[in-house]
Amino acid sequence: MGVRSVAISACGRGKIDTGVRWMAVRACGAAVAAVVALLSAAIALHWPPLHAVLQRAFSLHSAHSTKDMENFFQLVRNIVPALTSKKHKGQDGRIGIVGGCQEYTGAPYFAGISALKVGADLTHVFCAREAAPVIKSYSPELIVHPVLDSSNAVEEVEKWLPRLHALVVGPGLGRDDLLLNNVRGILEASKARDIPVVIDADGLWLIAQQPALIHNYQKAILTPNRVEFGRLWEAVLNSPVDTQGHSDSVLKLSQALGNITVVQKGEHDLISDGQQVLVCSQEGSSRRCGGQGDLLSGSLGVMAHWALLAGPERTNGFSPLLVAAWGACTLTRECNHQAFQKYGRSTTTTDMIAEVGPAFSKLFTT
Amino acid sequence: MGVRSVAISACGRGKIDTGVRWMAVRACGAAVAAVVALLSAAIALHWPPLHAVLQRAFSLHSAHSTKDMENFFQLVRNIVPALTSKKHKGQDGRIGIVGGCQEYTGAPYFAGISALKVGADLTHVFCAREAAPVIKSYSPELIVHPVLDSSNAVEEVEKWLPRLHALVVGPGLGRDDLLLNNVRGILEASKARDIPVVIDADGLWLIAQQPALIHNYQKAILTPNRVEFGRLWEAVLNSPVDTQGHSDSVLKLSQALGNITVVQKGEHDLISDGQQVLVCSQEGSSRRCGGQGDLLSGSLGVMAHWALLAGPERTNGFSPLLVAAWGACTLTRECNHQAFQKYGRSTTTTDMIAEVGPAFSKLFTT
Repeated sequence: MGVRSVAISACGRGKIDTGVRWMAVRACGAAVAAVVALLSAAIALHWPPLHAVLQRAFSLHSAHSTKDMENFFQLVRNIVPALTSKKHKGQDGRIGIVGGCQEYTGAPYFAGISALKVGADLTHVFCAREAAPVIKSYSPELIVHPVLDSSNAVEEVEKWLPRLHALVVGPGLGRDDLLLNNVRGILEASKARDIPVVIDADGLWLIAQQPALIHNYQKAILTPNRVEFGRLWEAVLNSPVDTQGHSDSVLKLSQALGNITVVQKGEHDLISDGQQVLVCSQEGSSRRCGGQGDLLSGSLGVMAHWALLAGPERTNGFSPLLVAAWGACTLTRECNHQAFQKYGRSTTTTDMIAEVGPAFSKLFTT
Repeated sequence: MGVRSVAISACGRGKIDTGVRWMAVRACGAAVAAVVALLSAAIALHWPPLHAVLQRAFSLHSAHSTKDMENFFQLVRNIVPALTSKKHKGQDGRIGIVGGCQEYTGAPYFAGISALKVGADLTHVFCAREAAPVIKSYSPELIVHPVLDSSNAVEEVEKWLPRLHALVVGPGLGRDDLLLNNVRGILEASKARDIPVVIDADGLWLIAQQPALIHNYQKAILTPNRVEFGRLWEAVLNSPVDTQGHSDSVLKLSQALGNITVVQKGEHDLISDGQQVLVCSQEGSSRRCGGQGDLLSGSLGVMAHWALLAGPERTNGFSPLLVAAWGACTLTRECNHQAFQKYGRSTTTTDMIAEVGPAFSKLFTT
């Protein structure tokens, strides 16, 4: 286990040694169980040095890792569509946000405006009737549909699906049974249309109740925080999660869900598609104000669309959704970092959203 | 076909060679059909060089065209009313915006605030009841009437018409039958009062259903994007549009609608009154976020009023509405350019609206 990179291949093949510093586990059928067990043991025995390695590997601020990190930034740049005068409105992304209820109105706004500021052309928010005028009032840039608590919510959203490139489900959703039931129908309709779906917040609550809703859907990305990760783990693996924030946990959860992409947010963000685990340790800050997860999910909605459009030939064979997730995590952490430099402890998510443009340019514009 | 200008006169007369770089076709009765056919063939055969010519002709950034372009900027300056201490509130423009429904509230705000920032004194928005408090919340500058879905909507708007200098119909209108039916009545009332009307977005959807509504009304300006242009073409000419973004298409559509002014938005904006075609290629950017069309329609509302007030003697014989449309297109593209210089891919329409004042000063203030 070298200092400069951590790369484990269960089958001794694949894209492990591309010069990018990442942690990768390729799981190949039966062989993986033993390897994962060994890895778990290794992690348990060597936590301090491994932790140090991850930090070195994924911090832009390590003199040793800058060059290799650059390769992974390049993969993100490869999925960002060119701005050309030949395009017309909508082509760089029409993103739907499903969420917004009586209590929560900020979250769907944060997700929607973040998608626009990353570069989507249009954002539609589908929320409960009562939440709509408030969400609209935050910004004239958002198109807001007050339909999520109506009896024909699924039909109302479904008629927009042919025009949407990706959905972000969960910001400000809450746990009202009527809304959750409608969201279940919307998820099923989205799967039927093969639309990429980012699921966060109480969208993950719904998935914890009914994991079959999303099991094996290869265009799903879940973005749990620590609590949500534990809840999903218990629901899917029928046991309390043992080691949070370890690469084997996110790998296992992804596999148990049929190899869908899971982003475990934390001190480092861990991202897995059940085959590989990427670590994002871009420098952020210690400020943990509410709403940062919405910036991540909204950014990821548009980047997931871009990545799937670009395809694996542009991501050096990596899963496009892994690259999109790594890009969105990196961007969110950089926004946090930049805002914290200006506002310190008083930083709020609005301050971070103001940094999306400059942070994106700094990280991903060549 | 020279490099410095493209000018075709079917009758060998008129204001073709005024030193302004523009593409002009003067159509004179029966002779025009053959000329248009020849022009179409010429365009088809010579598209790359013509394209190059248009770019040279209408970019401020071509060293070769600056002097000639200046003449056309001067025509726009000629229609801008002087700011004098003798005027009272309202004289520089009272503009009505007809649009705003359950889903769409940003668009009528963008159009209304743009009209104000170009220089109108008062803006009235006529929208559906549900949209009104939201649109009001975006800005205390707008006067908002929640009448568009009421049973007496036409009367409610009609009583304001004597005080309005121009209407912008369509931003955020949607396709609800009740609203569209009311808008039909409002259009008829506006025509009866000879009020200039800019029609955009789902106002164009209505016109595609009933072209007779606007046929031959010389104070109408339609501002279709690519999709809307195709829809109008099919409705009026009963065939699929063959060549989008070509000057002969916009000329033909204008003629088929009784020589009303048509602004085809695109990589270059093409503007025709059925007799001449102007091209606007002011440098913008490749960012295509939603709402830019509302900035154009709102600006055009007030500039159309100014141009008609100034009259053809101030526009060197050009149709005042052509000059107004060229001015509004040029302004919108400059706002896009200036905002993109600051915000890049994260640019939204709000950022562009903040540039209306500086861009207008730069382009049109002597």
